Amino acid sequence: MKVIQYTDVEPTRIDNDIAKGINGRVVIGKADQANNFCMRVFEIEANGYTPKHTHGWEHEIFVHQGSGQVFNQGKWDDIVAGSIVFIPGEEEHQFKNTGTLPLVFACLIPSGIPEL
Amino acid sequence: MKVIQYTDVEPTRIDNDIAKGINGRVVIGKADQANNFCMRVFEIEANGYTPKHTHGWEHEIFVHQGSGQVFNQGKWDDIVAGSIVFIPGEEEHQFKNTGTLPLVFACLIPSGIPEL
Repeated sequence: MKVIQYTDVEPTRIDNDIAKGINGRVVIGKADQANNFCMRVFEIEANGYTPKHTHGWEHEIFVHQGSGQVFNQGKWDDIVAGSIVFIPGEEEHQFKNTGTLPLVFACLIPSGIPEL
Repeated sequence: MKVIQYTDVEPTRIDNDIAKGINGRVVIGKADQANNFCMRVFEIEANGYTPKHTHGWEHEIFVHQGSGQVFNQGKWDDIVAGSIVFIPGEEEHQFKNTGTLPLVFACLIPSGIPEL
């Protein structure tokens, strides 16, 4: 059994042409012999955002802290602590922080693709 | 895409000989065509606990709120908001709330077994 705080994992900084102000962490994955699915935790700073993109695999998301919006078929849906987001494969999506606190969420993906 | 609050799902109450004070919810699962893994959210009341048990599948857990302990190979490890727990298959485990607030966590399992 592995018991940690998510902040125990060194973050990978994501700041590029299509994404801004993100700390990403793989908290449960292949290194733990988790062979079916992988848990990452993302912190998006105020004014930060993830890329608007599409891919073949799904996301299962639990929002832990903060407030933001998710792009959902042409509109923006609000998310706050306790929100659940299921994004099927091949569905375009983007997250942005619309608050002042970091937007923190766990985002799970199936195994067999890059973990971060 | 599905965007909800976890509290939008009607809880299943779990109170029996081996578990106490639990509200369980399947928030992403087969009904959503999520075919690889399933997200449940559990709220454990003050003084509540899950069964001490063992099974063949893993758990990937993100602790959202409250404080408690998880049984880990003969000892009890503390968990709080932001804790991550990975329980491999066939490893005995139990959760208990040791605080006053509900202990709330997302607990993911692979598909192909009962969702709750």
